[in-house]
Amino acid sequence: MNDKTALDFYFDFSSPYGYLMAEKIDALAAQYGRQVNWHPILLGIIFQATGSRPPADAVSSKGKYMLHDFARSARHMGIPYNPPSRFPLPTQNAARAYYWLHGQDCALARQFAHAAYRAFFVDDLDISAPETVLQIAAKIGVDRAKLEVALQDPAIKARLKDECEQALAAGVFGSPHVIIDGEAFFGADRLPQIEHWLASGGF
Amino acid sequence: MNDKTALDFYFDFSSPYGYLMAEKIDALAAQYGRQVNWHPILLGIIFQATGSRPPADAVSSKGKYMLHDFARSARHMGIPYNPPSRFPLPTQNAARAYYWLHGQDCALARQFAHAAYRAFFVDDLDISAPETVLQIAAKIGVDRAKLEVALQDPAIKARLKDECEQALAAGVFGSPHVIIDGEAFFGADRLPQIEHWLASGGF
Repeated sequence: MNDKTALDFYFDFSSPYGYLMAEKIDALAAQYGRQVNWHPILLGIIFQATGSRPPADAVSSKGKYMLHDFARSARHMGIPYNPPSRFPLPTQNAARAYYWLHGQDCALARQFAHAAYRAFFVDDLDISAPETVLQIAAKIGVDRAKLEVALQDPAIKARLKDECEQALAAGVFGSPHVIIDGEAFFGADRLPQIEHWLASGGF
Repeated sequence: MNDKTALDFYFDFSSPYGYLMAEKIDALAAQYGRQVNWHPILLGIIFQATGSRPPADAVSSKGKYMLHDFARSARHMGIPYNPPSRFPLPTQNAARAYYWLHGQDCALARQFAHAAYRAFFVDDLDISAPETVLQIAAKIGVDRAKLEVALQDPAIKARLKDECEQALAAGVFGSPHVIIDGEAFFGADRLPQIEHWLASGGF
C-alpha cells in the first residue's frame, strides 16, 4: 500500500460494462501508483432501493441499442466478448464466493472475479448456478468442498448484504461505479475521465 | 457534399450532453471528410413514445450524479458550462426557429443552434421563452418580426413533429444520438467510439 488511498470499484457479475471495467481498472490505477478495492454487489438490491430499473431489455429501442453497444464497446476497448445466451443472471453465488475467498487470499479472490466474468461474458457459462461457480473456483485451485459450504454461510451472506448497503450509502446506483477520493464515476465509458482524474489529481 | 454520406445528429436544446456533442461533432466529422445534418427534436415526445423517463432529477443518487457529471464532462472536454438555474426546459421555440432558418440558410441555422445552446448552458438564459429565442436570433442578424411569425407557422410546427417521428423511426431514444451509415451512437461519451468508427469505417 502506498500513501495514496485505493480506488473503490463496485460491480455486479452480471453487468457487461462492469466486466469491461474489470478488464481495465487495475492496470490503469497501477500506472498512477494506486490500488483498487473490488466490491461485487447485487444490482437487484441497488435497483430496489433506488427505484431504478435494469437499463437493458431486449425489446425497446434503448434495450436493443444497449445489447449492441455492449459488444461494440468491448471491440472498441479490445476486450473479448460474446453475448451471453441467458442475461441478466442472479449473481449472489459468484459474489459470495468472492467475499469468502477475499477473507483468505485477496489475489486469489481477484483471480476468481476475472475468471467468473470471463466465464459469463466469453464462455457463455451460467454463473448463477452454484455448480458453475464451484467449477470456476476449482480451476484456480480453490477447495471445492469448503467453498460449497461457504456459499451457504450466514456470515458470507451478511457480508454481501453489508457491501450492498455500503454501496448504496456511497451513492452507487448501477454497475460499474469507481470512486476515487470521494469522486464517483459511473460506467465503463468514464475510463477516459478516470485517467484524466488520476493524472491530474482532479479537474 | 463529398461521396461519403452525412452523419445525422439528433438532440434536444435542453440536453447538456447534446450541447457537449454539438461543440465537437462538426470538427470531428470534418477530419474524416464528413458533414453533419443537425436534427433538433423534443425529448418529451421521444420519452412519451418510448416509455422512458428523463434521466436526471435533483434528488435521487443518479440524478445528483448526473448534474455533477454534466459539469465534469464539460471540463473534461474543455467546453464552457454553467449549470442552468432552470432545467430542463421546453425547447419547441428554439427547435422551430432552427427549422425555419434551415429552410433559408443552413449555415445560419447552425450558427443559431450553437448560440441557443450557449445561451442556455453558458449564459443561463431561459431559452424556452419566445422572446429569448428572438433575441438570440436577432444577434446573428435574423429578422425578428419574420421569426416571430414563423414560430407559430403550422408548417414549421409540422416539420418539428415530422423530425421527432423520423427520429423515433431511426431508433432514437434520448439526446444526443449520432447515426453514421446506420450505426447509432448515444451520448457525448461515445465520441471516442465515433472517432474510431470514422477512422476505420466500422469496427
